[in-house]
Amino acid sequence: MSDTHDTAAILSIGDELVLGQTVDTNSAWISRMLSDRGIRIRTHATVPDKMTEIAAHIRMFASNSDLVIVTGGLGPTEDDLTRQALAEVLDEDLVCDESVLERIRNRFRSVHMEMPESNRVQACHPKSARLLPNELGTAPGLHARIKGTDIFCLPGPPNEMHPMFEAHVLPILRTNRVVLTHIVRTVGIAESTVADRLGEMMDRSRNPLVGTTASTDSVSIRIRYEGQDLALGERLVDETVGQVRSLLGPFVFGEGEQNLPGVVVDLLRASGDKLATVESCTGGLIAKLITDVPGASDVFHGGWVTYSNAFKAEQVGVDPAVFDRSGAVSEPCCRQMAEGGLVRSRADHALSVTGIAGPGGGSADKPVGTVWIGLARTGRPTQTRLFRFNGDRDAIRLRSAMTALALLRLSLIGDEDTALACQAPG
Amino acid sequence: MSDTHDTAAILSIGDELVLGQTVDTNSAWISRMLSDRGIRIRTHATVPDKMTEIAAHIRMFASNSDLVIVTGGLGPTEDDLTRQALAEVLDEDLVCDESVLERIRNRFRSVHMEMPESNRVQACHPKSARLLPNELGTAPGLHARIKGTDIFCLPGPPNEMHPMFEAHVLPILRTNRVVLTHIVRTVGIAESTVADRLGEMMDRSRNPLVGTTASTDSVSIRIRYEGQDLALGERLVDETVGQVRSLLGPFVFGEGEQNLPGVVVDLLRASGDKLATVESCTGGLIAKLITDVPGASDVFHGGWVTYSNAFKAEQVGVDPAVFDRSGAVSEPCCRQMAEGGLVRSRADHALSVTGIAGPGGGSADKPVGTVWIGLARTGRPTQTRLFRFNGDRDAIRLRSAMTALALLRLSLIGDEDTALACQAPG
Repeated sequence: MSDTHDTAAILSIGDELVLGQTVDTNSAWISRMLSDRGIRIRTHATVPDKMTEIAAHIRMFASNSDLVIVTGGLGPTEDDLTRQALAEVLDEDLVCDESVLERIRNRFRSVHMEMPESNRVQACHPKSARLLPNELGTAPGLHARIKGTDIFCLPGPPNEMHPMFEAHVLPILRTNRVVLTHIVRTVGIAESTVADRLGEMMDRSRNPLVGTTASTDSVSIRIRYEGQDLALGERLVDETVGQVRSLLGPFVFGEGEQNLPGVVVDLLRASGDKLATVESCTGGLIAKLITDVPGASDVFHGGWVTYSNAFKAEQVGVDPAVFDRSGAVSEPCCRQMAEGGLVRSRADHALSVTGIAGPGGGSADKPVGTVWIGLARTGRPTQTRLFRFNGDRDAIRLRSAMTALALLRLSLIGDEDTALACQAPG
Repeated sequence: MSDTHDTAAILSIGDELVLGQTVDTNSAWISRMLSDRGIRIRTHATVPDKMTEIAAHIRMFASNSDLVIVTGGLGPTEDDLTRQALAEVLDEDLVCDESVLERIRNRFRSVHMEMPESNRVQACHPKSARLLPNELGTAPGLHARIKGTDIFCLPGPPNEMHPMFEAHVLPILRTNRVVLTHIVRTVGIAESTVADRLGEMMDRSRNPLVGTTASTDSVSIRIRYEGQDLALGERLVDETVGQVRSLLGPFVFGEGEQNLPGVVVDLLRASGDKLATVESCTGGLIAKLITDVPGASDVFHGGWVTYSNAFKAEQVGVDPAVFDRSGAVSEPCCRQMAEGGLVRSRADHALSVTGIAGPGGGSADKPVGTVWIGLARTGRPTQTRLFRFNGDRDAIRLRSAMTALALLRLSLIGDEDTALACQAPG
C-alpha cells in the first residue's frame, strides 16, 4: 500500500442491515468525509453478524485499499464479532485493558446500574490494536495496521460513530491531494432551469466541477476542486461560486449548511420584524419549519392552522361570502387570510397558504396541486400568487411551505418581482 | 446452485453512492422483500461506475448465491456500464431489440422530444439475457442466468425499481420456506419496558421470533415465523400477536403499516368528533402530523401555534397573570390553552402543548425537555400531564407531539389512567 491514503473500503456489519430492517447511512457519511479529502472509495460492503464473512472482507479490503473503515459489531452480545474477526485476521489473541474496563464500569455506575459481565469483552482488543475511546457509548473503537493499511473499527450507531471518526480517523489521514468543496443553495427554481443557466459550467471535465442535486423542495449546486494547489483551488472555487451566484441571482438563498427557514429567521431578526402564519393545506408545516430553528421565538409570534372554513372566518376574519363566491382555494380567501392574520397577530409579515394537496379534492378548474400563497405586510401591498405544484400530498405540502418561505425571503431582501418555480398566471 | 432461491446477493452501482452523495436505500428495500420470503441475504456491495469492478462482483456473486440483484448503471450515458459488464461476464455480444427501441422512442415522442442517439443502447442486451419492460422510465431491466443463478439488473431510481422488482423478480422466486411477518405498533412505552414485559417471548430461538425496533417516537414489535407449514405458521403468528397485544395492553395503537395520526383520525371520524390544537413548543407539528393524513379535514377544525405569550393570551384567552405567576411552561397555562382552544374552536377535543424544546431556555426547575400536555374535552374534565423528554430539539418536539396524540387516543378509547413513557409527577 502507498504512503498516503489514496483508496479506502468501507465494511458495514449487522444482521439488521442485510435483512433490510435498517438502512445503512454510515457508509455514505464516511464516503463523503473521505472523498471530500480526495480519498477514492473502492467499495462498500455489508455482511451479516458472521465471523467468517467479516474476517474474509477485512482481509480482502486490507489487501487492496490503504484505509479500511468497519462499522458495527462492537456491542457486548454474542452477535457482536468484529473484534474477534479482527483478531483472527491479525492472528492475535484478545487482551483486556483494565483501565478501559473501569471506564465502562463507571458508565454503568453513573446511571445506578451494575455492569453486566457481557460488557467485559468491550475492553478487549487484538494485541497489536489500539482501543479508541467512545465518549457516547460503552463500545470503544479499534485501530490496527495490516501491512501498511490502516483498519478502523467503529461502533454502528451514527451518533457514536461520527464523533469517533472525526476524533480518531480524520487526524491520521495522509493525502497529497487538495479537495475543496462548496455548496450554493437555491429555492424556487427547477433543476433543469439551473442547468440551462449554468450551461458549460457543468461540463464534466471542468475543475472545479459543478454539479446539481435536487431534493423535493430545493436545488443545491456543488462546486468541487481537486488538485495539488491549495491557493489555486481556493481562488478557482471562489471564482466559480461567484459565477454561479451571479447566474442564479435571486434564487440563491444560502451556502454550505444553511437552510431556508434559518435564513428567513436571520433576515427577520436583522430587521427586528415579526412573523405570523395562516395555513390551510400546509396544516402547520410552515410554523413547524420556522420553529425548527432554535431561537425562532425572537421573530415568530405564532400562527393559525385554519383547516375548516369556519375556522378561517372566525379566527382570522375571512368573509364567509368568499367561500360561496370563490371557494376556499382562491385569491380573495388567500388575501383575507394573510391580511386577517397580520392584523390579529400584530406582526409585520403574515404568510398564508390555501390549496389542494390531494389526493382528493381536486377538480378540472382547480386540480390537485393548485395552491395560493399570500404575504401581507405592514405598510406595503399584499402579494398573492398562484402555483401549480406536482407530486404527491407530502411533496405538494412541502413545496407549498418552502415556496411561501421563499416568497417571504424575496420580500425581505426587497425583491418584489422574481417569479418562483411552478408559478401560474393568477 | 440449488433448485430453490436460498441465498441472494445485492449489488448497487454508482459513483454517487461510493462518493456518499446518495444513500443507498435499494439494498435495504430488496433485502426486506427477499428475507420476508425466507431468502438469506449473504451480502450487499456497492461499487463505482467501473466496468471491471461491476463485472468482478457479478461473477463473484453468481458463484456463491442463487439470486443476484443489481441496481443502477442502466442509463443512457457513458457512465452506465451494467449491461456491458453483464455481457462481459456472460461472454456475449450486445444485441438490440427494435421493438424495445421503438417503445423508448415513443416515450420521448409523448413529451414532444426526439430520442437522443445515446438512448439507443438501452434497447440492447447480452444475447441470452431478457429485457424487462420499465413502465416508468426509459431503462428496461435485464434477466440472465449463469449456471443456475438468476441475475436481475434493475434501474437505480427506487420509483422505477420497486414496481419492476415486484413484476419481474417476485413471480420467479422459488423457495420452500414459509415466512410470515407481522408488526405490532406501540407508543408511550420505552423499548426496555417492552422487553421487560415480553420477557422470554424475545428469546432468539423462539419461532415465531419476536423482536423490537425503537424509533424516536414509538416502538414496533416484529413477529416473524419461518418454517415449512403455512397453516401452522399462521396459527403461531396469530397466537403470538395476541400474547404481545395482551402484554402491552393500552400502548398498542395499531398493526402493520398503521401510524398514530392515522389511527387518531379514524377514531375521531368513527365518533363523529372534531379536534383542535393549541401548540407552543411543538410549533405546529401536531397539526402537521394530523393533516398529513388524507381526509383529515373530516375531523380537524384547525389550530393555533401560540408561540409568544401575547398570542396565547389574545388568541386562546390564557390569563396574562399566569405568565408572571407560573410561567408559560406550567400546568395552568397548559390547561387554559386547551380549554380556550376548545371553546373558541367549538371542537370536541383540544390538545395543548407547552414546553422547553431547547437547546436554550432551560433552568434548574424546568430543564430542557420539560413539557406539559393538556387535553380539554366537552363534558369531561381537562387532563394535564407533565413530561420530561430527553434528546435534542427535534426529538423533544416529535416526542411531545406523538405523546399528545397518544394521550388523545387513550381518551378516545376510554382510558383515563394509563401513564405514558417519560411522564413525571405533575
